[in-house]
Amino acid sequence: MSGADILERLTKTLENRKNASPEDSYVARLYAGAPDAILKKIGEEAAEILLAAKDGDKLQIVRETADLWFHCLVMLSYYGMTADDVLQELRRREGVSGLTEKEQRKKGKD
Amino acid sequence: MSGADILERLTKTLENRKNASPEDSYVARLYAGAPDAILKKIGEEAAEILLAAKDGDKLQIVRETADLWFHCLVMLSYYGMTADDVLQELRRREGVSGLTEKEQRKKGKD
Amino acid sequence: MSGADILERLTKTLENRKNASPEDSYVARLYAGAPDAILKKIGEEAAEILLAAKDGDKLQIVRETADLWFHCLVMLSYYGMTADDVLQELRRREGVSGLTEKEQRKKGKD
Amino acid sequence: MSGADILERLTKTLENRKNASPEDSYVARLYAGAPDAILKKIGEEAAEILLAAKDGDKLQIVRETADLWFHCLVMLSYYGMTADDVLQELRRREGVSGLTEKEQRKKGKD
Repeated sequence: MSGADILERLTKTLENRKNASPEDSYVARLYAGAPDAILKKIGEEAAEILLAAKDGDKLQIVRETADLWFHCLVMLSYYGMTADDVLQELRRREGVSGLTEKEQRKKGKD
Repeated sequence: MSGADILERLTKTLENRKNASPEDSYVARLYAGAPDAILKKIGEEAAEILLAAKDGDKLQIVRETADLWFHCLVMLSYYGMTADDVLQELRRREGVSGLTEKEQRKKGKD
Repeated sequence: MSGADILERLTKTLENRKNASPEDSYVARLYAGAPDAILKKIGEEAAEILLAAKDGDKLQIVRETADLWFHCLVMLSYYGMTADDVLQELRRREGVSGLTEKEQRKKGKD
Repeated sequence: MSGADILERLTKTLENRKNASPEDSYVARLYAGAPDAILKKIGEEAAEILLAAKDGDKLQIVRETADLWFHCLVMLSYYGMTADDVLQELRRREGVSGLTEKEQRKKGKD
């Protein structure tokens, strides 16, 4: 996937922002109000995906999904993790069939 | 990022599931109830990230983020798009400084 | 319930705000951006309840729930409905046992 | 408001459900999995309001709002509070003009 290197670069940028001033950096302000400031953004962006999707507005869907994933990266970074942890989890599930996975998910959550 | 190939493989798998029976495939059931069935899952998984994060449960945070991203991939696929569109959007923003981006985001949304 | 008259008064106030200028009134600004501006707030306030509840912060839980219900009233008003429609629906369900209601809810939603 | 007595009756019913078996009562099952089971429902129902509202489906909007408020009542009950606490908070804000309230809200949250 041609754009996947961006996740690695963003991971490094977010790490650097941990030393930035909240005055100068949007991400530093999120860290300063963490975890709630980051988590509120995740809630907001998820809601905005729903609205864009119901409008069938493809460009807006992509923008809001980028917003959501970006704030997920900030959240992961805050908790000492990266996109790679999420991608590894998705890879781990790959062998498991959809329905088995769903059953497992149900058992784990209910 | 070592796991990034998984996004490309999942994209292909999701495309194939468009021809599967809802009886046999969790993803086919989501497509059958789309867009609402997919969008409800995005709302649910976002909420579950918030709960896992407030618990500081790192393993659960990774699982719920994987769930959220997975259902975003299903949503993108339903609307004829892929993870690559989102990664390209993130790359496009890369040159833009955080605060400029935030201003632009604000203008666009308010 | 001693405070229930407030729902009726808020319903009237929200109706009046439909003629107000967005410059002067927060609610008029929500109407001007409706439905998305209102719906985003519902998403945001729901997320904030989750965060306040996980903190066990009772005062904040009450505030965020008041925020959520208030924006629900604005949403209902935008679509030509009132809190009374919601309360009537809750009353209608009253005779139905919890488990029957859940089964009916499941059937209706899945 | 003709239906407002229902909030008081539901408050009492929810209190009684604290002694019920999760086998027999949907609400008892929510309490058993609290707070997360309750909070997930609040996230889900908020998402479903957004979807119903974007469809402009008035009947569904009322049902989903009733679902959301009901699960808010369960949440309040779990934390030892009632709808009356929320209504009192809404009444307290009544004297405050919309824009002042918004400013105060902003200050409190940002």
